[in-house]
Amino acid sequence: MKPISESTVTIIGLGLMGSSLAGALRGKCRKVVGVARRKETVNQAVSQGLIDAGTIDLEFGVQDADIVVLSTPVRTIIELVREIGPLLPESALLIDLGSTKEEIVENMSALPAHVQPLGGHPMCGKELSGIAAADPTLYRGKTFILVPLPRTAPEALDVGRELARTIGAVPLVLDDARRHDFLVATLSHLPYLLACALVQTADATTSEDPAAWEIVASGFRDTSRVAASAVDMMTDIILTNREEILGALQEYSSHLSELGRLVKNANEQELRQALSYAREKRMEMFP
Amino acid sequence: MKPISESTVTIIGLGLMGSSLAGALRGKCRKVVGVARRKETVNQAVSQGLIDAGTIDLEFGVQDADIVVLSTPVRTIIELVREIGPLLPESALLIDLGSTKEEIVENMSALPAHVQPLGGHPMCGKELSGIAAADPTLYRGKTFILVPLPRTAPEALDVGRELARTIGAVPLVLDDARRHDFLVATLSHLPYLLACALVQTADATTSEDPAAWEIVASGFRDTSRVAASAVDMMTDIILTNREEILGALQEYSSHLSELGRLVKNANEQELRQALSYAREKRMEMFP
Repeated sequence: MKPISESTVTIIGLGLMGSSLAGALRGKCRKVVGVARRKETVNQAVSQGLIDAGTIDLEFGVQDADIVVLSTPVRTIIELVREIGPLLPESALLIDLGSTKEEIVENMSALPAHVQPLGGHPMCGKELSGIAAADPTLYRGKTFILVPLPRTAPEALDVGRELARTIGAVPLVLDDARRHDFLVATLSHLPYLLACALVQTADATTSEDPAAWEIVASGFRDTSRVAASAVDMMTDIILTNREEILGALQEYSSHLSELGRLVKNANEQELRQALSYAREKRMEMFP
Repeated sequence: MKPISESTVTIIGLGLMGSSLAGALRGKCRKVVGVARRKETVNQAVSQGLIDAGTIDLEFGVQDADIVVLSTPVRTIIELVREIGPLLPESALLIDLGSTKEEIVENMSALPAHVQPLGGHPMCGKELSGIAAADPTLYRGKTFILVPLPRTAPEALDVGRELARTIGAVPLVLDDARRHDFLVATLSHLPYLLACALVQTADATTSEDPAAWEIVASGFRDTSRVAASAVDMMTDIILTNREEILGALQEYSSHLSELGRLVKNANEQELRQALSYAREKRMEMFP
C-alpha cells in the first residue's frame, strides 16, 4: 500500500467530520476528493479550499482512490458499506468515522476480498455541525480509535495509523468492536442522554420563570453542552448501540437513585463519602 | 449607609469565593479585612495582596466593618448568622454568599435590629477551591442574586447592588428565597448530582479497561466537570435544599426514563423528536 503522501483520499460525506478531515489532509496527500449528496456542499468545499476535487457521483469519486473514508451518520455508513465494494479499486483501504463500530465492522466483513476494511472512530466533535463549521485542527491531539477486522492486512492497519497521525490524532487500536461500543456507551452516549434529560427538566420546571435564564450558571452550561449535538448523527449512534446504552443507563440510574436516597435520608456521612469518591475519580480522570 | 468606596468590608471565610471577592474589592473600598480559621490562610491572603488586614479573631475582625460578607459553606454561614449579631456595629450590612437561601434568610430574620441583613448568591465558581485558586476576575459578568428580607432597608439593598457591580457582577434581586432554592435545585444542584453519578458509572463500568482513559471524549469531560466541586461546600448546599433537589431529581428521572424507553423500543420518530426538542432548547438557553 502507498504512503499517505502518495495516496488519493476520497471522503464521502462533507459534514463537520468529513470536511475537517479534508482540510487536515489537503496538501499532505496526493489528492483529496470530496463526495457529497448536494452540489452546493461540493462547491463550498472547493471554495473553502478543503478538497482538490469534488463530485456528487459516488462511483466517479472513488474510482482512483487509494483510501476511502466514510464520514456520514452511522446508518448511512452501513448502507454505503453494503453497496460500495464493487466500486472500489484493487487494494483500496475503506475506513469509516462512525461512533459505533459493531454493526459497521460486521457489514465490512462481507466486503469483496479486493478491499481492505478498517473501522475508525475519532474521539472529537463540536456542538456545531456541517461544512460551515469545518476545522482542520479538529483532530489534533485527539484519540483516533482503529478497529481492524480479522481480514484486515497489517499494512492496511499501518496506513490507518499513518492517516491518524497525519491529521495530528493519536491512533488507538481496539480489536474488539463490541468492547468499543460498550466503552463509548458509558463515556460518550450516556453523557449525551443525560444532557438531553437535564435540558428537558430545566425547560419543564423553570422555563416560565424569567429569572431562570439569568441564573443558569456555568455548571449547567457545561453539563448540558452535548445536548446541542446534531440529532441525525446522534439518532443513528443510539439506534446502533441500544443494548450497551441501556446497560449504561441502568448502571447510571442505580447510582443516581442511591444518591437520591442519601439526600432524602439526609445521610450526611455516606453522602459525603459518595461525593468525595466521585470528586477523586473525576480528578484522576482529568488530572 | 456609606458608599462602597468609603466602606470597610470584612470577609469571613477565605476560600475560593471569599479570597476572590477580597481581591476584586481591594483598592475599591476603604479597607478589606479577612477573617479565616487558620493563621496560615490569613498570612497567605496578605502575601497574595488580597486583603489589607487579616485575623483569626472574628470579634476583632468585624468591629469596624460597614459590610460583613459570610463566605463559608452554607451550614457554617447559618451558625455564623446565629452568633454574629451582637458583634456587629450599628447599621452594618450582613450579606452571605451561600448557594441556598431559604434557611439562611430565615435565620437572618432573627438578627438584632441594628443589623441590615441581605441574602446573596453569586452564580460563579470553579472546580478548584481554596485561596490558592483566588481569582479577582471570578465575578466578572456573572449574575449576583440578592435576596432582601422584609426588614432589609432599601438603602441596604442598594449597597448590595453596588457591591455586586463593584466586582463586575450583574445584580439580580429575587424577593423569594424559596423560589431561589427551587430554581438553583434544577439549574445548579441537579447538574452536580448527575455529574457525580456519571463519574460513578464510568468508574464502575470502564475503570478496569485502560482504553477507557484514552477514549474519554470532550463530551464526558464537560458533562462530568462539576463533579470535581468542593465536597464540603456541596454537602452543605444539598443538605439545606433537600426538598427542592428531590423534586428536581424526580422530574429529571422521569425524562431520562422516557428517553430510555424510546431507546429500548427503537422508537425512532419519537426519539428524534425528543432529541430535537432538547437541542433547540439548549440552543435557546445559550444562543
